[in-house]
Amino acid sequence: MIERDIWHGGDLAQARALFTDAPEPWIDLSTGINPISYPLPPLPQSLWQRLPGADDEAALLAAARAAYRVPESADIVAAPGTQILIDLLPRLAGAGAGPVAVLGPTYAEHAQAWAKAGADVRPVADLDQASEARTIVLVNPNNPDGRVVSRQRLMIVAAQRAARGGLLVVDEAFADFTPEVSILPELPPATLVLRSFGKSYGLAGLRLGFAIGEPPLIRALRTAMGPWAVAGPALHVGATALADSPWLAQAGAARAADAARLDALLAPHGRIVGGTALFRLLETGNAPALFVHLGRHGLYLRRFRNDARWLRFGLPGQASEWARLEAALTDFASSGPGPA
Amino acid sequence: MIERDIWHGGDLAQARALFTDAPEPWIDLSTGINPISYPLPPLPQSLWQRLPGADDEAALLAAARAAYRVPESADIVAAPGTQILIDLLPRLAGAGAGPVAVLGPTYAEHAQAWAKAGADVRPVADLDQASEARTIVLVNPNNPDGRVVSRQRLMIVAAQRAARGGLLVVDEAFADFTPEVSILPELPPATLVLRSFGKSYGLAGLRLGFAIGEPPLIRALRTAMGPWAVAGPALHVGATALADSPWLAQAGAARAADAARLDALLAPHGRIVGGTALFRLLETGNAPALFVHLGRHGLYLRRFRNDARWLRFGLPGQASEWARLEAALTDFASSGPGPA
Repeated sequence: MIERDIWHGGDLAQARALFTDAPEPWIDLSTGINPISYPLPPLPQSLWQRLPGADDEAALLAAARAAYRVPESADIVAAPGTQILIDLLPRLAGAGAGPVAVLGPTYAEHAQAWAKAGADVRPVADLDQASEARTIVLVNPNNPDGRVVSRQRLMIVAAQRAARGGLLVVDEAFADFTPEVSILPELPPATLVLRSFGKSYGLAGLRLGFAIGEPPLIRALRTAMGPWAVAGPALHVGATALADSPWLAQAGAARAADAARLDALLAPHGRIVGGTALFRLLETGNAPALFVHLGRHGLYLRRFRNDARWLRFGLPGQASEWARLEAALTDFASSGPGPA
Repeated sequence: MIERDIWHGGDLAQARALFTDAPEPWIDLSTGINPISYPLPPLPQSLWQRLPGADDEAALLAAARAAYRVPESADIVAAPGTQILIDLLPRLAGAGAGPVAVLGPTYAEHAQAWAKAGADVRPVADLDQASEARTIVLVNPNNPDGRVVSRQRLMIVAAQRAARGGLLVVDEAFADFTPEVSILPELPPATLVLRSFGKSYGLAGLRLGFAIGEPPLIRALRTAMGPWAVAGPALHVGATALADSPWLAQAGAARAADAARLDALLAPHGRIVGGTALFRLLETGNAPALFVHLGRHGLYLRRFRNDARWLRFGLPGQASEWARLEAALTDFASSGPGPA
C-alpha cells in the first residue's frame, strides 16, 4: 500500500509541534544532509538579477558530467532538486511503463509518484521478485538501510528492462562519497540515473539535482520543465562545488569517520542495520521511546511507519551537537526508556 | 505557426556571439526585468543548508496572497519561476482543453507549451476571434506591446470558458506596478492567474513565480512538482519583498518615470507602440539597422521574428547606462542607419 502521508525528515516545525518543551536550538538529525556544508563561493549580484544564462547552465552541466563520470553518449539535465524529476518522470514515461517495481523499503516519494501517475506500483523487498516488472526503481545505496546493489547486477537488470521496453531508475542520491557504487561511467540502455547535489554538499536548500540517461527521455524531462528551472545562484554554486574534487574527498573521509563515531554511540542502544556516511539506521525495540526521549532533548530523528523499530540518525555537525546527542543517549541508557 | 526556436532576451552570451567587437560591459536591454533590484535581505546559512521548511513556504504564500490580493476561496502555488508553470499547465489540463486560443503576438512560450502537449493552438489577434476556443491564454498587460484587456471583459471571457468546461489563463507577469489591471481580487471560475516575482523586483535569477486558481488545478500543479521545488533563499527573499509594499510603490513610480524618459529618447527613431513601465516597444523600418548599431555599441535589444520593424527596449539602470544608450542613439541619428 502506498501511503499518501509520507513522513519526511528535515522539517523542524514538525519537531517543535511534537515536542513543545524541547530546548532550542533544535539539532536536526532527521535528514541525510551533510552538516558541514560546502563553503558558499561569493555570489555576484548578477546571478540573482538576470535570467540564468545558457553559459551558466553549460558550465554546471560540464562540471556535473566530470564529477559524475557521465559517458559522452548520455544526456544530462539539471533540475531544482531531484524531487521534481522523481515527480515528472512517471508522467513522461506514461502508462506503458508499468508494472513498476520499487525495491523497498526506500524513499517513499518514488512509489507515490508512480502511483499518482496511474502506474501499477509493486513494492518488492528483493530484485528477484521484480522480474515481471517492466520498470524497476531502486535507490543505490539505499535510504534508509544503505543496501547496495552491485554494478554487475544492475547491468543485468538494465538489459532485462531494455528487452521489455521498460526502464531502470537508479537514484544515486547518496552515492557521491562512494563513487564505486555508482553504475556510472557505464550507462546501459533503458537506464536513468538520478543524482542529488544538496545532500553530500550540505546545501539542500539550494535545490539542485540531475537526471542522466538516454537523450530522448532527458529531452522530455527538460521540455517538461522549460528553460531556467534552476536558479542562477544554484547554477554557480553547483558548478563551483562539483569541480572541487578535493573538497568532496575530504568531506567523504570526514563523514565516514563521523559515521563510525555515531555507530559507537548508538551500539549500546540497538543494532546498526546499515546506512551511508550521511546517516545510520538503528533497529531497537525501544525506538518509540528513544524517539520521544531525544525529541524532548531537542534532537529530531527520522522514524518509519513501515517499521516502528527503526530510527534513522543523521550526523551531528558541531562539537556541541555531538555533546548533546551523547549526553541524551547516556541519559536514556541510565534512566531506561521512561514514559513513551 | 509555432516557432520551435523561440528568441528570448536575457542571454548575453548570444549578444557576445553576434557582436564580437562590442565594448564590455554589455548593457542588457533585451528583457523586461527591473534594473534596480529589490535589495537582498541577509540570507541565513540555514536557508541554503536545510530543506525548505513548510513554515518557510507558508510565510511566502501568505505574503503573496496579501500582495496579489488573492481571494480566500482561491488556492495558490509557488514554483521556481513562472515558466515551469507555463510548461506544466497544458499537460495537466489535458487534450480536452483545446482548442486553445493564444492572444498574440505575445510571450511565445505559452503557445509552444500548449502545442508540445498536443493541443490545437490558434494564435488570435483579437479576443473576438477566440470565441470558439475552449481555452484562452493572454498576457495582461501584454508583452511586448502593453495591450490591456479590461477586467470587465475578462470576467465575460472567463464566464464563457467556464460554460464550456475550458480555462482562461491570465499571465500577469507585468501587472505588479499596475494592480488595477489585475483581475484579482476577483477570481471567476475557470480562471488561472500567473504572477512572476523576478521582473518587477529585479531578481529573475532567483526563480520564483505563482499560479492562482481553483483548488483542484492548483493542487495538480503542486503535485506535478512535488515538495521543495522552490529554493530556501527564494522563499525567504520572496516573503520579505512581497511584504514590502512601500518598496513596490516607489519602484513603480521610479520605473514609470524611467519609461517616460526612454520614450523621449526613442521618439525620434520611430513610433512607441506601447509597453509597460519595464519595457517599451519601438516600431521603425530601421529596426534591423538600429539593432545592429546598438549591438556594436554593447547594447542588447529584443527583436522579433513576427515583426522585423519591432524592437523592445528594457530600461537602463545606472546613469552610465543611460548615457551610453543616449550617445549611441544620437550617433545612429546623425550617421544614418549605416551598413546592416
